[in-house]
Amino acid sequence: MPSNDQRFCPADSSQVPRYAGPVSFFRLPQIDDPARVDVAVVGVPWDGGTTNRPGARHGPREVRAQSMMIRPYHHVTRRSPYDVCRVADLGDSPVNPVDLEDSLRRIESFQAALHAAGAAPLSVGGDHLVTLPVLRAIARDAPVGLVQFDAHSDINDVYFGGSRFTHGTVFRRAIEEGLVDPQRTIQIGIRGSRYSPKGGDFAAETGIRVLTIEDVFEIGVAGIVAEVHRVVGSAPAYLTFDVDALDPVYAPGTGTPEVGGMTTHMAQAVVRGLGGLDLVGADVVEVAPPFDVNGATALVGATLAFEILCVLAEARARTRPSG
Amino acid sequence: MPSNDQRFCPADSSQVPRYAGPVSFFRLPQIDDPARVDVAVVGVPWDGGTTNRPGARHGPREVRAQSMMIRPYHHVTRRSPYDVCRVADLGDSPVNPVDLEDSLRRIESFQAALHAAGAAPLSVGGDHLVTLPVLRAIARDAPVGLVQFDAHSDINDVYFGGSRFTHGTVFRRAIEEGLVDPQRTIQIGIRGSRYSPKGGDFAAETGIRVLTIEDVFEIGVAGIVAEVHRVVGSAPAYLTFDVDALDPVYAPGTGTPEVGGMTTHMAQAVVRGLGGLDLVGADVVEVAPPFDVNGATALVGATLAFEILCVLAEARARTRPSG
Amino acid sequence: MPSNDQRFCPADSSQVPRYAGPVSFFRLPQIDDPARVDVAVVGVPWDGGTTNRPGARHGPREVRAQSMMIRPYHHVTRRSPYDVCRVADLGDSPVNPVDLEDSLRRIESFQAALHAAGAAPLSVGGDHLVTLPVLRAIARDAPVGLVQFDAHSDINDVYFGGSRFTHGTVFRRAIEEGLVDPQRTIQIGIRGSRYSPKGGDFAAETGIRVLTIEDVFEIGVAGIVAEVHRVVGSAPAYLTFDVDALDPVYAPGTGTPEVGGMTTHMAQAVVRGLGGLDLVGADVVEVAPPFDVNGATALVGATLAFEILCVLAEARARTRPSG
Amino acid sequence: MPSNDQRFCPADSSQVPRYAGPVSFFRLPQIDDPARVDVAVVGVPWDGGTTNRPGARHGPREVRAQSMMIRPYHHVTRRSPYDVCRVADLGDSPVNPVDLEDSLRRIESFQAALHAAGAAPLSVGGDHLVTLPVLRAIARDAPVGLVQFDAHSDINDVYFGGSRFTHGTVFRRAIEEGLVDPQRTIQIGIRGSRYSPKGGDFAAETGIRVLTIEDVFEIGVAGIVAEVHRVVGSAPAYLTFDVDALDPVYAPGTGTPEVGGMTTHMAQAVVRGLGGLDLVGADVVEVAPPFDVNGATALVGATLAFEILCVLAEARARTRPSG
Amino acid sequence: MPSNDQRFCPADSSQVPRYAGPVSFFRLPQIDDPARVDVAVVGVPWDGGTTNRPGARHGPREVRAQSMMIRPYHHVTRRSPYDVCRVADLGDSPVNPVDLEDSLRRIESFQAALHAAGAAPLSVGGDHLVTLPVLRAIARDAPVGLVQFDAHSDINDVYFGGSRFTHGTVFRRAIEEGLVDPQRTIQIGIRGSRYSPKGGDFAAETGIRVLTIEDVFEIGVAGIVAEVHRVVGSAPAYLTFDVDALDPVYAPGTGTPEVGGMTTHMAQAVVRGLGGLDLVGADVVEVAPPFDVNGATALVGATLAFEILCVLAEARARTRPSG
Amino acid sequence: MPSNDQRFCPADSSQVPRYAGPVSFFRLPQIDDPARVDVAVVGVPWDGGTTNRPGARHGPREVRAQSMMIRPYHHVTRRSPYDVCRVADLGDSPVNPVDLEDSLRRIESFQAALHAAGAAPLSVGGDHLVTLPVLRAIARDAPVGLVQFDAHSDINDVYFGGSRFTHGTVFRRAIEEGLVDPQRTIQIGIRGSRYSPKGGDFAAETGIRVLTIEDVFEIGVAGIVAEVHRVVGSAPAYLTFDVDALDPVYAPGTGTPEVGGMTTHMAQAVVRGLGGLDLVGADVVEVAPPFDVNGATALVGATLAFEILCVLAEARARTRPSG
Repeated sequence: MPSNDQRFCPADSSQVPRYAGPVSFFRLPQIDDPARVDVAVVGVPWDGGTTNRPGARHGPREVRAQSMMIRPYHHVTRRSPYDVCRVADLGDSPVNPVDLEDSLRRIESFQAALHAAGAAPLSVGGDHLVTLPVLRAIARDAPVGLVQFDAHSDINDVYFGGSRFTHGTVFRRAIEEGLVDPQRTIQIGIRGSRYSPKGGDFAAETGIRVLTIEDVFEIGVAGIVAEVHRVVGSAPAYLTFDVDALDPVYAPGTGTPEVGGMTTHMAQAVVRGLGGLDLVGADVVEVAPPFDVNGATALVGATLAFEILCVLAEARARTRPSG
Repeated sequence: MPSNDQRFCPADSSQVPRYAGPVSFFRLPQIDDPARVDVAVVGVPWDGGTTNRPGARHGPREVRAQSMMIRPYHHVTRRSPYDVCRVADLGDSPVNPVDLEDSLRRIESFQAALHAAGAAPLSVGGDHLVTLPVLRAIARDAPVGLVQFDAHSDINDVYFGGSRFTHGTVFRRAIEEGLVDPQRTIQIGIRGSRYSPKGGDFAAETGIRVLTIEDVFEIGVAGIVAEVHRVVGSAPAYLTFDVDALDPVYAPGTGTPEVGGMTTHMAQAVVRGLGGLDLVGADVVEVAPPFDVNGATALVGATLAFEILCVLAEARARTRPSG
Repeated sequence: MPSNDQRFCPADSSQVPRYAGPVSFFRLPQIDDPARVDVAVVGVPWDGGTTNRPGARHGPREVRAQSMMIRPYHHVTRRSPYDVCRVADLGDSPVNPVDLEDSLRRIESFQAALHAAGAAPLSVGGDHLVTLPVLRAIARDAPVGLVQFDAHSDINDVYFGGSRFTHGTVFRRAIEEGLVDPQRTIQIGIRGSRYSPKGGDFAAETGIRVLTIEDVFEIGVAGIVAEVHRVVGSAPAYLTFDVDALDPVYAPGTGTPEVGGMTTHMAQAVVRGLGGLDLVGADVVEVAPPFDVNGATALVGATLAFEILCVLAEARARTRPSG
Repeated sequence: MPSNDQRFCPADSSQVPRYAGPVSFFRLPQIDDPARVDVAVVGVPWDGGTTNRPGARHGPREVRAQSMMIRPYHHVTRRSPYDVCRVADLGDSPVNPVDLEDSLRRIESFQAALHAAGAAPLSVGGDHLVTLPVLRAIARDAPVGLVQFDAHSDINDVYFGGSRFTHGTVFRRAIEEGLVDPQRTIQIGIRGSRYSPKGGDFAAETGIRVLTIEDVFEIGVAGIVAEVHRVVGSAPAYLTFDVDALDPVYAPGTGTPEVGGMTTHMAQAVVRGLGGLDLVGADVVEVAPPFDVNGATALVGATLAFEILCVLAEARARTRPSG
Repeated sequence: MPSNDQRFCPADSSQVPRYAGPVSFFRLPQIDDPARVDVAVVGVPWDGGTTNRPGARHGPREVRAQSMMIRPYHHVTRRSPYDVCRVADLGDSPVNPVDLEDSLRRIESFQAALHAAGAAPLSVGGDHLVTLPVLRAIARDAPVGLVQFDAHSDINDVYFGGSRFTHGTVFRRAIEEGLVDPQRTIQIGIRGSRYSPKGGDFAAETGIRVLTIEDVFEIGVAGIVAEVHRVVGSAPAYLTFDVDALDPVYAPGTGTPEVGGMTTHMAQAVVRGLGGLDLVGADVVEVAPPFDVNGATALVGATLAFEILCVLAEARARTRPSG
Repeated sequence: MPSNDQRFCPADSSQVPRYAGPVSFFRLPQIDDPARVDVAVVGVPWDGGTTNRPGARHGPREVRAQSMMIRPYHHVTRRSPYDVCRVADLGDSPVNPVDLEDSLRRIESFQAALHAAGAAPLSVGGDHLVTLPVLRAIARDAPVGLVQFDAHSDINDVYFGGSRFTHGTVFRRAIEEGLVDPQRTIQIGIRGSRYSPKGGDFAAETGIRVLTIEDVFEIGVAGIVAEVHRVVGSAPAYLTFDVDALDPVYAPGTGTPEVGGMTTHMAQAVVRGLGGLDLVGADVVEVAPPFDVNGATALVGATLAFEILCVLAEARARTRPSG
């Protein structure tokens, strides 16, 4: 880290109990200026793209609360993201709960300010549609690769007779807008009954690599990690983690649970294996606290956000211009 | 009731247990043709006008499920609405969870069909904005009087920098559109902290009669009933019951709870006292099951819907053209 | 209390925390011999008479657990039932969860043994049908008066095409069997929609005094107490408390909640006013823990059981043959 | 499918949101005439055979509600049961919550009508005793093979001193009555502490093949599928899925949870492997909503019911007389 | 307010939704310097004085989260505390969850710093023992009057064989230490069973005025307000609100619930009537989120804290030295 | 078993339903004299060593309640601990919820009495600090080996600036006091973020064998069992099971959940493999019911306690002096 930069540290839980003190992501300082950080952890409290059960707008608050449980050093790598990058809680994105288009604009504008300041976003949703304005902010110039943990491909075309912007159509839109390169896209954990036998045609046509849950259990953590690296390569990539990729026992608090998913242990191990990717941003979405049980899904979301932060910070540390 | 009409009866709970059989409002038959009924009980599963906690879109399903507990005869009047009117479950209104304007159109169109067929609607929301398209469908020709049970006046002008259609602005819009006569409007149970000291100016300027919760406890059931009759008079009127009028212990499952509200016993007694009004429709809104506790709020919503159905059916029976 | 008798005392909560130690009713000793007590507190873990939502079989365990919160002295009277009577936890009645008739026999037999030993029962149910075998055990010789707190009269004739023994028919059976004197019976809190307009005919024909919830709020605690004394008089009487007499906010954990009921404060005050009755037994029924919220209804049940124990013990102390 | 038959389709979730519209199994039409279908999905809302925690009577309603989440096409096979069979929701079986024998008769009679009309039943319980009257209706003429997913063998002889009909004795009775061929019976997932060291003697004597949970984890999905085919063969067979076969984290809402069970992913895969069996009926039992958590077990029950429906419909399509 | 002072305002909920943005008491700014405020709202996340059910240590976080629902203007007075005083969120007091004496010292030291800076504390507990170190910080020089809302007098001498510092002994200690004037002390809402018949002797001997719950319902809001003014007078006083003063339906999330308490409406009205007292500080204690239901008790605590803030700010505005 | 000893048997669940009858560990008799048993099952209702979320003080009561589900014979071994040892419920240890040091003394004294009588303890906590006074009671003379299932090593030095006795420092203290031999200590399931990169230095320096969760999934049940035997050997050993070793989906009701842990099936199998160890005592700790979901964690705790009881009883039977 450049010597003239301030490093941000979480509050020390062995001094201040983890249930006390200001609530922020990972107990990090809350600041307003994105130019002071390499990675900006932010909330996107909006669920206006939800076609089924709402509530993900409450995700950022509960993930923040549960993230107070996370200590700074990873137990396997023995490294801390705060040792290699400046990381802080940059607050919540502006949103408009009663206006979808206005919300997409507000989120994009907020994310664009982070991007302009050189801060890579780690966003906590919100429903999956919030990934679209994030990508509009950071991938306008060149499409990024995509690592998508999800039960659903989210590549439907329209809902309800013509609505094009929903959490179930987000990656078709992102590909159409040239924000995501489908040939450098991999989806992990896809499962669940479908609207039609042709559900995956768009994936096949565009070259998206789909790992169904059957593939996941068959090739295992090492196989998945290898396949992600093969598909995504070394060019810039974005990681999006929809908690419904996990089995509903790990993530009951989500809008569209699908029985028979990944374990958290497996998801953690896969994320940990992505250290070499050139990640330019990431998100954890679809934590819906009204359907959660005692904060369990929010804790899972916070734990995965920490795993992701570890690999994102390492990627940022490698690519950051030296001070 | 005209002798050539079919009467609809709830399933008999002393034969089929109340936890069994098809789920419909009050165990009534589910039919599609509004011309066959005097009162149409319908769901409006939409909460896109919610500025705070969502979930009222799930209201119709849970109120239906809890309404299976309600038997046909009122324990005080010893009368049944099904003895004086044809009543059935006409299903859910079409909605679009990701498009506010499209939803307002769909709801209005569905309600207009009921209205054209001569069926008075008893709608179960959904957030309070759903009352607007209902009123557009039934009060286009002449403004109606309004009996509003609510913690909030819902007469703000805009939210979030310009959004005019929300559950907190619905009655300002309805008055502006000439659907509701403010001088024949009474609000019951208003309370809770406010955005500004001028919160009630619109009410004062337009002549809305506001009974705060302090008024409610001071004048009591008889006083409230008398005041409603004085304000609303004998012309056509609409009754809207936002469950947050009740104290949160009775209605925890709602989007914007306000501590210190009415009891259900008091609310039931007031509704029962409105038998003489010329009601042309009614609704129960803001039941938000994701925040509910074991269906308690949905049961309260169902019980109040039955109280309202009793007075609405009596009103319809008086005004219906003889067969 | 006769000088040669052993007095049973609850464990001391200022020494052993109330969340610790053996779980028994009111922290009383658990004994097997009814001859050693004046009042036997017992559980009847059975709900085979339930026509709607089951779970009251779990009532005794949860009421026991919550009763650990109750200290020995009443805060108004400054008296303790344990100072005037020998009271202990006599365990649970035998039951058969898959055989209604066998259960009625087992419960009656267990209660008859208490009765033969001179112990007055304070039973915790269980659904309301369990009151029938209790009455068979203690009122075979002469009908007793009845003080019934309840939302429902429980005097229907048959259910489901011919079933005569249910929690909704129990007091018609008890009257038919000569166990209860209907002219010395008073029901308090009756409300809720009904199957037919004739719901109360049996009550009117037999002379049961019915206080609807409207009566309850109109005449108040003093009025109810006076009416109970007038109706029941000084002959032997039985008190039965169905927790659905209370509003569902106080007793959500019950099988057939009815919106708009009594407050616990009112119920406590009425029970406290019944000190002069010649109570020969009592019960608290219809606590259904699977529908409860954090033990709230069980705590209410335990608190009311303590209020009842106070008046029952005073009655027993007056009528017990001197040692 | 014969060309002159009507095919039933679920409501389209991309048009009507899944939280809206009439509640039925898989959003299928609700009809009364079993002659119009090949497979009848029905509820059996009864739990009178429960020896421990009740509540399975509420299973059909909650499984129906959660089944609204299931879309028509299977994500692995890309096939839909509605393309090969006529399937509808035939409603709930009559039951009597206070009379065990009457309930067994009512259930058998209802199922016999389905059987006579040529409709194969997919029943949703209810406790496991409901499988007995189903088998009486469809296997009177010749015993069927049995594929039983379960934590418990349910082959005890009597409970509570002589009760022969309970959910823990159902398959001993079915074998004694000649409804099930023990040598073509396989039990999957058996575990949990036992009443005596001889718990499995009846299984051993009659030739039931028992796969304990240890066997399950040792031989895996492929091993289990092979063993089922070996034991059951190609003659008519019945599939019964007690959700307590699953680990309690997947199915907390059940009467007798046993720690350390199957995962849903494994259960789904095994069911999917049973496509070649000659299934004549199936059920999913012991979903007990009062002990469930936010509908999780009901969603698991619905998802497994869909997996079962897929194999049952394929079996029916093979054996149905051509039109 | 002195013209050279900065006024702190809550975030505007009509701009930023109430579920979004940084979590602080009433959406106020979080600052560190007590010299900048007249009233310091602080958390005391500690429950080491709890004799029964723990969890009040989590109170500050949840009350903060629910206080985001409270808008700035009071609906009856139409006044805002932020218009008359500088108010901010000063964070949480240091505590030590495993050391009682160390915690008392840390809390006192933190409060003493507020006091030295001229900031009146509005503390959110934490169990009731936290009031002791607060009083030690602000009432060392002269005893204060005390307005105590509570189900329990909290004047026991010792627990568990000799422990003198618990939430059940706090006001005996405060009186013994000369921090509270018992003759200017009034307790409101006292009820619940007692350890001994002599429970109130200390109150009687020292001159504490006790309003039992029976007194509360008998004399009503106006009577209570008058009695508080009569007892406490115009000298400095402290207000402490234990949420168990309320009936458990309003405040289930507390350590020692007592059935049959005050309504929130009544409590709000009484607090509102205390405007003329010379309040020097206040607290809301015993909110125990692990026993709460969907944040209901925390919302009640936040709402009462706002009522208290309104009267405390008015008192501070009167007594503050002019700028 | 010596012929002159009384054997204790659980109540028979096929006679008395498992939801009925006195609540004790495994339905065993509750006795006071430890000399009458070989294994004493006891509760330690205390959580004063908790640094984060409290509630484990309620563990014994809830584990007792759920243990009523456990039958006497193990389904794999077909053996019962009650056939080889005298086992009973010896009640709860004395504790002092407001005094840490007094509690450690009381627990040690209680355990010392068990030890002096020759009864091996199976204790149910309580937080993990309760293991310290147990070890002081039974390992004063010679250090024992330790098998620790846990997410956390619990070998920190101090918390909160100097507190040496907490649930996070317990095994450093036990090793320092010579109660545990670190070279015969194995920790299983360690994971989760850490306070510093040096978190495990004490383990490395003293020779503790640490199996992280990654090790656990890599070497599997057989590997773990072998490693435990290798490390612990045949000398006396103690087994301690912190339920947070399990993934939070299996044990949500605990103070410091860590995502990504063991399954119950795996934990059961490992415990079952430890039959040959010379166990002198064991405990199950950190079940915190206020954070639990419908008793799930308590049932898991009870099930694991039974697995442990089976191996502990076998060990006691081998080493007990013959009668």
